[in-house]
Amino acid sequence: MMSMENFKQFLVFLVSALSVGFVSIIFVMRWVFHFKEGLAWDGGLAEFNWHPLLIVVGFIFLQGIAIIVYRLPWTWRCSKLMMKFIHAGLNILAFILAVVSLVAVFDFHNAQNIPNMYSLHSWAGLAAVILYAIQLVLGLAVYLVPITPGFVRAALMPLHVYGGLFIFSTVIATALMGITEKLIFGLKDPKYKDSPPEAVFVNVLGVLIAVFGGLILWIATRPAWKRPSENQLRLARSSDLGPVAGANDGAAMTTPGDQETSGDQARRRNGKVEESVGRISV
Amino acid sequence: MMSMENFKQFLVFLVSALSVGFVSIIFVMRWVFHFKEGLAWDGGLAEFNWHPLLIVVGFIFLQGIAIIVYRLPWTWRCSKLMMKFIHAGLNILAFILAVVSLVAVFDFHNAQNIPNMYSLHSWAGLAAVILYAIQLVLGLAVYLVPITPGFVRAALMPLHVYGGLFIFSTVIATALMGITEKLIFGLKDPKYKDSPPEAVFVNVLGVLIAVFGGLILWIATRPAWKRPSENQLRLARSSDLGPVAGANDGAAMTTPGDQETSGDQARRRNGKVEESVGRISV
Repeated sequence: MMSMENFKQFLVFLVSALSVGFVSIIFVMRWVFHFKEGLAWDGGLAEFNWHPLLIVVGFIFLQGIAIIVYRLPWTWRCSKLMMKFIHAGLNILAFILAVVSLVAVFDFHNAQNIPNMYSLHSWAGLAAVILYAIQLVLGLAVYLVPITPGFVRAALMPLHVYGGLFIFSTVIATALMGITEKLIFGLKDPKYKDSPPEAVFVNVLGVLIAVFGGLILWIATRPAWKRPSENQLRLARSSDLGPVAGANDGAAMTTPGDQETSGDQARRRNGKVEESVGRISV
Repeated sequence: MMSMENFKQFLVFLVSALSVGFVSIIFVMRWVFHFKEGLAWDGGLAEFNWHPLLIVVGFIFLQGIAIIVYRLPWTWRCSKLMMKFIHAGLNILAFILAVVSLVAVFDFHNAQNIPNMYSLHSWAGLAAVILYAIQLVLGLAVYLVPITPGFVRAALMPLHVYGGLFIFSTVIATALMGITEKLIFGLKDPKYKDSPPEAVFVNVLGVLIAVFGGLILWIATRPAWKRPSENQLRLARSSDLGPVAGANDGAAMTTPGDQETSGDQARRRNGKVEESVGRISV
């Protein structure tokens, strides 16, 4: 399905994205714990700090991973249905963290008598959360409710994919606006324009977030890295090249009763046969 | 090449993008002339105002149009070379306006003793301009210098397309950060958080810019709206369905000496034959 060269290129980008994502999380944690007031739920600045932390961990990192999870070649032996559960599960987790992070900031504003929803950052962020909720509900209804007909699924797929990438990009743009606001409001003496260490450090966090976004969008839009269609996977399986089952047979990922319940795609999986999928170049 | 239904959908999105783009330009002009100090080149705030105006007109609107210009179906009768000149010309114009808008802001900062390059907005903006310059030089060298071999052009095309869309998205994210900065620094009494009319108006400008970006990215990524390959166009031309030349024969767009000079694609064009291109569904 994927040539070895393609697979290596994919790995380079995946490892880069994961690394930049992890470093972003470390940066936001250092921002919160070293430069700022740490975490609490007390109506003060330490409550606000949940906002950047949960946005970076949930709305940026987890959503990014959710977007590319179908493209991990070693998951192509897993049923489409299981991958859908993982995709949906990661997105639901990201959504919950995003909502908690919004609650933190509204609660902080109310405790401090700061108005809500006056900034472009707040408008874009609320729009992103609402669009994300719509995307989630539509996604579950169209792609996980078994009775939705195949032509509806196919017709809405371009919108689902574009919507996901657009929301993800909006979240990143909104995070960069949030960093801008927080550095202006949070740094008093020295100010943001005096470039104290915190200002430079959090600017770098912003660059890391943008690079993470760029890597996820690259991985998500390479045609050669797409999960093959169920037909292609069946074909690859039926032309199994021989004894390739290894120690890492993927038994943990391929549960015995694992089935694709959507219409015409119901079939059982076999870990050993599917082991070969990743080694066949089409 | 493109079905009538597809063509109508394309028109809806194109008219939406153009409308939102024009309204964005009107909004930034009203911001500059009604809410702010107007335009001048005097080291004061009226010099700064060139910055948002030229960014919206050049780096956002013109770049957006440059990105989708190959997808206008009525240009498919024009030679690829002419479309490359239009694409490159619009991008060069956008680049010049972006550079002038940077000069305005540096000049303003220096005159007012405000530090340069301290904010995430400035980092992202400078990165976008540098990446745009690299993209322009590479694009000219690879796609307009006639001796570049076809396999190099083909190999770099995914990077050229992704790079263009990534830079465009970065510019929009940077503009939203710039709006955030300017509303915080520019509004003193009432402040940004008091939501005076200017704050709400410019927030709406930010939303318009984001929607314009979303529409351009949608148009630029629909596979069915791609300019057909030169082979497909040749095929469509040779199966001309008859006398379809009308009053709007596109003579203004199809200059007599119009030729594609790149390698194997050199051929003359004929306005009447190509008139049929838009009417054939494949």
